[in-house]
Amino acid sequence: MQDNKISDAVIHRLPKYYRYLSELETTGTERVSSSKMSKDMNLNASQIRRDLNCFGGFGQQGYGYQVAKLKREIMKILGIGTRHTAVVIGAGNIGQALLQYKHFAHEGYHIVAIFDVDEEIIGKDIDGVSVQPMKEMGQFLMDNDVDMGIITTPKQNAQRLADELVSLGVKGIWNFAPVDVEVRRGVSVENVHLSDSLYILSYRMRDNSEKD
Amino acid sequence: MQDNKISDAVIHRLPKYYRYLSELETTGTERVSSSKMSKDMNLNASQIRRDLNCFGGFGQQGYGYQVAKLKREIMKILGIGTRHTAVVIGAGNIGQALLQYKHFAHEGYHIVAIFDVDEEIIGKDIDGVSVQPMKEMGQFLMDNDVDMGIITTPKQNAQRLADELVSLGVKGIWNFAPVDVEVRRGVSVENVHLSDSLYILSYRMRDNSEKD
Repeated sequence: MQDNKISDAVIHRLPKYYRYLSELETTGTERVSSSKMSKDMNLNASQIRRDLNCFGGFGQQGYGYQVAKLKREIMKILGIGTRHTAVVIGAGNIGQALLQYKHFAHEGYHIVAIFDVDEEIIGKDIDGVSVQPMKEMGQFLMDNDVDMGIITTPKQNAQRLADELVSLGVKGIWNFAPVDVEVRRGVSVENVHLSDSLYILSYRMRDNSEKD
Repeated sequence: MQDNKISDAVIHRLPKYYRYLSELETTGTERVSSSKMSKDMNLNASQIRRDLNCFGGFGQQGYGYQVAKLKREIMKILGIGTRHTAVVIGAGNIGQALLQYKHFAHEGYHIVAIFDVDEEIIGKDIDGVSVQPMKEMGQFLMDNDVDMGIITTPKQNAQRLADELVSLGVKGIWNFAPVDVEVRRGVSVENVHLSDSLYILSYRMRDNSEKD
């Protein structure tokens, strides 16, 4: 696979392909053409072909793509299905929501512990995982093989916690605190900004109303 | 403003500019050059200049951009600060998290009601907003001026609820159910897929580990 050359824009479209192909698979569809994908996904057909060519290109002229095979390849590239072990820092609403999202475990993302500083919530069972005191995080990460840290704390703690997680051997940070955390080379981070999509929604609403 | 011509890619970068400029403003910075922005934001400087030119271009050669002014312009384009009134459908963890996120109200996004079908949670006070029975949503939307519906229910209910919200006059849907909902022309939708950023994170982790 030559995925080192895959551009950022393509990478960001892969999850969308994955979701689309998963839907097709559940409806029993075996093959799909780039023109049908284009219509369903609201993407340009030649862009779809270019994107999929980036990682080997499994389409055949006049035959289309094999749904299951293409989905498997995209999963492999994204690392979906590969086992990942994660801890959640912060047992507020977002932390609890992530623990309850069953799909993650099916896809290989296992949340094995959740930590918080709030005495009120420590010991609470969230979907079979008991909230542990924050001060035990270090020992837990030394005793267990954890490759991912999920931060759902207020923003003032996020960078410090990211640094601590990285120093304890975590290789990826999924950050929900509304601030961009930074990590050293060799470690990966995704900063999620929920409000970004709210801003884009309000842009589109205004744009739509001006067209009326 | 010529924002009808602004491309989707530029629109998706605007929230990032907005966040960056907000940070600069809180530190008292008055001017910023595209080369400093480029370094801080990890974007190409000429792309930044092109992006900002799209909506009028406020930079001056050798002087840079005025932080406060540029931020205000981006806010105007995104509709941040314009009053929006929203209802949340589904009082689970995500719904509750959104109600508790204070920043939204400061930026003009007011959540005025939250609805759920669960008898256990109806009547609960979440940050000053009481959870109402789902069956009262229709009447509420007829009696109140609401332009945005936020869906945080399981995916099997999402499209039906979006249709109902739109038929009751809502102009924008912010959807957190893990399925793409569709709306008629003239209405806007943003489908949030939290797991997409998890997939991208696991891609980067694999990519990073192969470089080791």
